[in-house]
Amino acid sequence: MRSVSVVGANMIKFGKNEKTLEELGQEAVVGLIKGMNLDREKIEVAYGGNVFGGHLPTQRVLKELGMTGIPIFNVENACASGATAYHQAYQAIATGVYDVALVIGVEKLTALGGGALPIPPNEIEGNHGIVMPGVYAMRAKRYMHDFNVTAEDFGLVSVKNRANGALNPYAQFQKPITIEEVMESRLIADPFTMLQCSANSGDGAAAVLVCATERAKEFSDISIKTEASVITSGLFKGGYRDLTWAEITYRAVHTAYEQSGLKPSDINIVELHDAFTIAEILYYESMGFCEHGKGVDFIKDGKSYIDGQVAVNPSGGLISRGHPLGATGVAQVAEMFWQLTGQAGKRQVKNPRYGLTHVTGGGISGVDNGACGVHIFSAVS
Amino acid sequence: MRSVSVVGANMIKFGKNEKTLEELGQEAVVGLIKGMNLDREKIEVAYGGNVFGGHLPTQRVLKELGMTGIPIFNVENACASGATAYHQAYQAIATGVYDVALVIGVEKLTALGGGALPIPPNEIEGNHGIVMPGVYAMRAKRYMHDFNVTAEDFGLVSVKNRANGALNPYAQFQKPITIEEVMESRLIADPFTMLQCSANSGDGAAAVLVCATERAKEFSDISIKTEASVITSGLFKGGYRDLTWAEITYRAVHTAYEQSGLKPSDINIVELHDAFTIAEILYYESMGFCEHGKGVDFIKDGKSYIDGQVAVNPSGGLISRGHPLGATGVAQVAEMFWQLTGQAGKRQVKNPRYGLTHVTGGGISGVDNGACGVHIFSAVS
Repeated sequence: MRSVSVVGANMIKFGKNEKTLEELGQEAVVGLIKGMNLDREKIEVAYGGNVFGGHLPTQRVLKELGMTGIPIFNVENACASGATAYHQAYQAIATGVYDVALVIGVEKLTALGGGALPIPPNEIEGNHGIVMPGVYAMRAKRYMHDFNVTAEDFGLVSVKNRANGALNPYAQFQKPITIEEVMESRLIADPFTMLQCSANSGDGAAAVLVCATERAKEFSDISIKTEASVITSGLFKGGYRDLTWAEITYRAVHTAYEQSGLKPSDINIVELHDAFTIAEILYYESMGFCEHGKGVDFIKDGKSYIDGQVAVNPSGGLISRGHPLGATGVAQVAEMFWQLTGQAGKRQVKNPRYGLTHVTGGGISGVDNGACGVHIFSAVS
Repeated sequence: MRSVSVVGANMIKFGKNEKTLEELGQEAVVGLIKGMNLDREKIEVAYGGNVFGGHLPTQRVLKELGMTGIPIFNVENACASGATAYHQAYQAIATGVYDVALVIGVEKLTALGGGALPIPPNEIEGNHGIVMPGVYAMRAKRYMHDFNVTAEDFGLVSVKNRANGALNPYAQFQKPITIEEVMESRLIADPFTMLQCSANSGDGAAAVLVCATERAKEFSDISIKTEASVITSGLFKGGYRDLTWAEITYRAVHTAYEQSGLKPSDINIVELHDAFTIAEILYYESMGFCEHGKGVDFIKDGKSYIDGQVAVNPSGGLISRGHPLGATGVAQVAEMFWQLTGQAGKRQVKNPRYGLTHVTGGGISGVDNGACGVHIFSAVS
């Protein structure tokens, strides 16, 4: 397996946007190409992550840009779609099939007309009301019971991520909020108020250029390397499940640690899937940054802040940067590119060496996710 | 690149079906597993082709079967989705990432409520009426003008494919038809009557087990090998385009010839994308079986019949087997497995050595297809 690098990244500001899905994607890709002064003829293949945009979304984005006649793959893994697109590009380059790939993620959630995300017609749990806010609310309630914490404790995640997002020009929400504002916003699913949930109003797009590390210098003076790339699916086992333990994340992240030879203490930055505040707390634990049940202490002690032990969601995460499903996984890679090359501006983490990205997609069958995507990247010293 | 084999195949009868999308897929996969007496724990990864089934379709099929915790990839390339899923499995095995992959294709078109397939909201041509029947009708009209043939000549494709489908227990339409019936059916888009169009009423699913050839014997005494695997996208060029020439098919098929070292005269069987009768005529030509403009002569001379020079669509093709979009590409691979291992029953081609599968997906921007997938398989002597 060859080493695989990211040599360029671009995204558009997430949030409600008048543009079409095609235009969102085109803005991200054109910005990438112009920013890199890239000869688009060098792009050999494209992988696109999208969930709700209909058929051939990546072709519809690229055909107007002249990127045609190449293999184009549309991949879907719910919220892990962008990470899955990156994974496939990584794998094809690592194994020598291609040298240079474009990875894009795009989503126009406002086209769905607002409200909850569509539930597949035969998804029994979803059609009985066990939708995302409900699932995560149950996990939060159980966590509160087992570990003697409060809803306000979870709210600290929103305060941190909105503070980070206020430093990120690409974030949907760029205004810091107080814990009082979090707790006073309207109730969505007890114990979550609105400001403890990521918004489903985000449109957005992100694009990265990926290539064999041996050719990285041809495209850019700055780059990051891929140390691990993992996609897995849920176990969907019956019987009792510990709602306070993120099994799929544990399995995916620890597979990535094995692939890279790294351990939790090596990781300086994490972009993780804070769909709801409880999720970030659970992931501190399943990623091995603290013991099970100690996630609230972890944030209370400031360890997940930009200047903490591990900067978690310096971009603002899903709660602040926004969460246009297919775009999120690619935006996470873009954030790592900027952070690990020192381009992250006001939200820059100091001298990071390793960064980890993480998304989980589709809460089918209660607590199980349909897909989880994890990547680890390293700075090039 | 390692050699990659297909060691098992199954599909369900295409056509209107009361079952859910999940159940359709499960029936195909369970039949595959039982038929092979397969230990499902040996499946390392799954690739699923689907267009209109919503998010995580492959997870929804597999989770009830206990095939969980493995990487699962949902891929979409319109009508080429199933072929794209096979291509990705092939590539990952050929490069040594996995040894054993499940490929499934599933579609429940009747869930769309009938009528035309959905058009992406910003697809300018489609929203002005340049939908599939219209595009192919224009190609047919131009072909009639340029090469002095009639609508009835095209109808011979329907007669042949329905005759073949009558021998295929998996086909949606198993009744032979006469040229008079073809011409007297109701007009859809001049010059096409209904029986010159593939139906959009098909539900269906197909599944194949794919593995490194070096492990094929572990799974089955019979297998076929993959000689070429190509996915490409349209060129979408502006200006004058020859409506009578299938550029993307020409490019994909000839790339497959290059990969395999084979030439048109080596191919004994073709499963091709006869979405409309004209398409099959155009593909005889672009695949190199006859000269441009001589496609009608090719079928009139019986060269594309089961006992002809090259058996084209012995399964009945899209016109007779049916066309549940995501399932078609995988069903074509299943047909090659059966044909090249002598399991095709009444529609068996005599001693075939090489078979080619072909799908094109998504007629965005007039005559250009969004994707084309081509595979060549060989019998194991």
